Amino acid sequence: MSAPSLSITRRIRSTPFSRRVEAAGVKAYTVYNHMLLPTVFESVEADYHHLKRHVQVWDVACERQVEIRGRDATRLVQMLTPRDLRKLSIGQCFYVPMVDETGGMLNDPVLLKLSEDRYWISIADSDLLYWVKGLAYGLHWEVDVIEPDVSPLAVQGPKAEDLMARVFGEAIRNVKFFRFEPFEFDGHWFNIARSGYSKQGGFEIYVDGTKLGEPVWDRLMEAGQDLEVRAGGPNMIERIEGGLLSYGSDMTRANTPHECGLGRFCDTFTAIGCIGRDALLRVAAEGPVRQIRGLTIDGDGVPPCTTPWPIYGEEDGEDELIGMVTSAAWSPDLATNVSVGIVRMTHWKPGTSVTVETPAGVRTAKVRTLPFA
Amino acid sequence: MSAPSLSITRRIRSTPFSRRVEAAGVKAYTVYNHMLLPTVFESVEADYHHLKRHVQVWDVACERQVEIRGRDATRLVQMLTPRDLRKLSIGQCFYVPMVDETGGMLNDPVLLKLSEDRYWISIADSDLLYWVKGLAYGLHWEVDVIEPDVSPLAVQGPKAEDLMARVFGEAIRNVKFFRFEPFEFDGHWFNIARSGYSKQGGFEIYVDGTKLGEPVWDRLMEAGQDLEVRAGGPNMIERIEGGLLSYGSDMTRANTPHECGLGRFCDTFTAIGCIGRDALLRVAAEGPVRQIRGLTIDGDGVPPCTTPWPIYGEEDGEDELIGMVTSAAWSPDLATNVSVGIVRMTHWKPGTSVTVETPAGVRTAKVRTLPFA
Repeated sequence: MSAPSLSITRRIRSTPFSRRVEAAGVKAYTVYNHMLLPTVFESVEADYHHLKRHVQVWDVACERQVEIRGRDATRLVQMLTPRDLRKLSIGQCFYVPMVDETGGMLNDPVLLKLSEDRYWISIADSDLLYWVKGLAYGLHWEVDVIEPDVSPLAVQGPKAEDLMARVFGEAIRNVKFFRFEPFEFDGHWFNIARSGYSKQGGFEIYVDGTKLGEPVWDRLMEAGQDLEVRAGGPNMIERIEGGLLSYGSDMTRANTPHECGLGRFCDTFTAIGCIGRDALLRVAAEGPVRQIRGLTIDGDGVPPCTTPWPIYGEEDGEDELIGMVTSAAWSPDLATNVSVGIVRMTHWKPGTSVTVETPAGVRTAKVRTLPFA
Repeated sequence: MSAPSLSITRRIRSTPFSRRVEAAGVKAYTVYNHMLLPTVFESVEADYHHLKRHVQVWDVACERQVEIRGRDATRLVQMLTPRDLRKLSIGQCFYVPMVDETGGMLNDPVLLKLSEDRYWISIADSDLLYWVKGLAYGLHWEVDVIEPDVSPLAVQGPKAEDLMARVFGEAIRNVKFFRFEPFEFDGHWFNIARSGYSKQGGFEIYVDGTKLGEPVWDRLMEAGQDLEVRAGGPNMIERIEGGLLSYGSDMTRANTPHECGLGRFCDTFTAIGCIGRDALLRVAAEGPVRQIRGLTIDGDGVPPCTTPWPIYGEEDGEDELIGMVTSAAWSPDLATNVSVGIVRMTHWKPGTSVTVETPAGVRTAKVRTLPFA
């Protein structure tokens, strides 16, 4: 039986790039922030090899922005995350875990500081806008919280910088990792950051205005013909190899940032006023009892992980449930299944042998550090 | 080219019924509240005819519940909606528009009053949990706001009552429209409401516990064999014929309840303390300048509406943009295209001739009242 198709309605929002994505022959989508996110063009494996060798243009408009501006903007943004934002400069991006009052992950976005009283939160897959609007209303703070007409377009892969320099000029080469600057395109100014959901290097263009989507897409495709530029999207294999986590897959509201290995982004002691501080101070003091790890799973390729796969480990001679795998893919370059899961302290040491109950049968596996490559 | 498939990962949550849905041969899904929602089994048209004649079991686990309990629960719930909740009894369901401070629609859920200090909000497709949690935190009110392990299973169609009586007993026949009562299933008690996203009559079983999903599904399927029970899902044709709106498709944050024809659910004058009251009092006084209407679109079947289709109407001898179609389908029973759209006051009178720019060409159309049938 063929894979179920996706019924597309207006509720599954199209993006400023959707017509180009369709013309490029998209074969599969996922839905992210109520929006289409292309996942496959040729095949997951072919797209993966291409991404690691050339350059791809990704429609990641689904990385919606929550814009916060006004007198209380800085205070509100600090309330949203346990990361200390006093060191965040204008033109800088911070990866910021956001948690509820119990320390449970609500989103793991990238925060952009546009000015002293204006921020964009470039969000993962949950309606963070609702959380921020609810807080602002309840607190009666002086901020405006909106979703602007801004749609990121990512350019990823080893040739990304060369392609970007052709379209936006040589100065793009000077943009440092997780920094952004405004660049001109046909009289419009887009913030462009050196960032993206791959480990191949690249940029994210914050296309400011739906009407400009197709012109930017077309310019990149024209300029990159000899670089073998193609349409692409976040690649399951590459992102697991690179240890990039997916909110909703590898972490949910059930997890603290510390469980997700994001403790280094939690300055719980100094981020006074942040939501979840009481709970996280306790976690920071005691440490988590389970944490995200990589796992290699033996045998031939496993199917995608659609529901968590139980991980069993030996404890006093018996097999016990000690975690779950949340993402998995066959890695052609590493010639093994790579996966991400959450593993109990008793078994999280890299090298520990465990078994995983996959839909393709029970497999032996080994705990690993992330990233794999 | 075949329709793009849906890449399913853990982030696109499976439901307690997903294995049964797959076994029933689901052909298409949509994603709703980060969860799989089956849309097609045989074909949209075949499923439609079956729904209007027999009985279907629908996996609508994606109608997630936001549970609010605690001393300030009633006060908080009233704050969430302009509908006056003083008349809502325990065991009753209310359809409640929920808006932000500007009167923009955030969700159009069904509210269930479980007890004096405990409610379920059965939500449409947006993370209302985040809005409610944000408000509760900002206000420091004494409430707990969670997503319980509750997954609605709908039984819809003209034979729904007969099937339900076989599984849950004859008393189910006494449950009135938009009322719910607890019914026993293998020693567990489920709230069952006479409700659902079709106009064919039926019930929604609030399955309380993931493990009970498959047993309930199986019992219904076994008991309904001679009633020709089948797996189904919300049907695009039937719901448009019936004038049922879809949040995200037919209305968004850009719309007030009055624009959506939901003014009758807004007791803005008496619902003191509700969010958006200032904005909605103004709208209620002046009336909206555009409103949701039905439209019949001439010619053969149009494709699904994935982005709004412009509606043009005559104004001083010129064609002007006067609205947009947001959902459309060919209705076999009415032998025309039925659609839902938002139409400017100047052209919203039923019977008005307009034109619609569809992907299948410009078509003549007529404004209609909802529902169509």
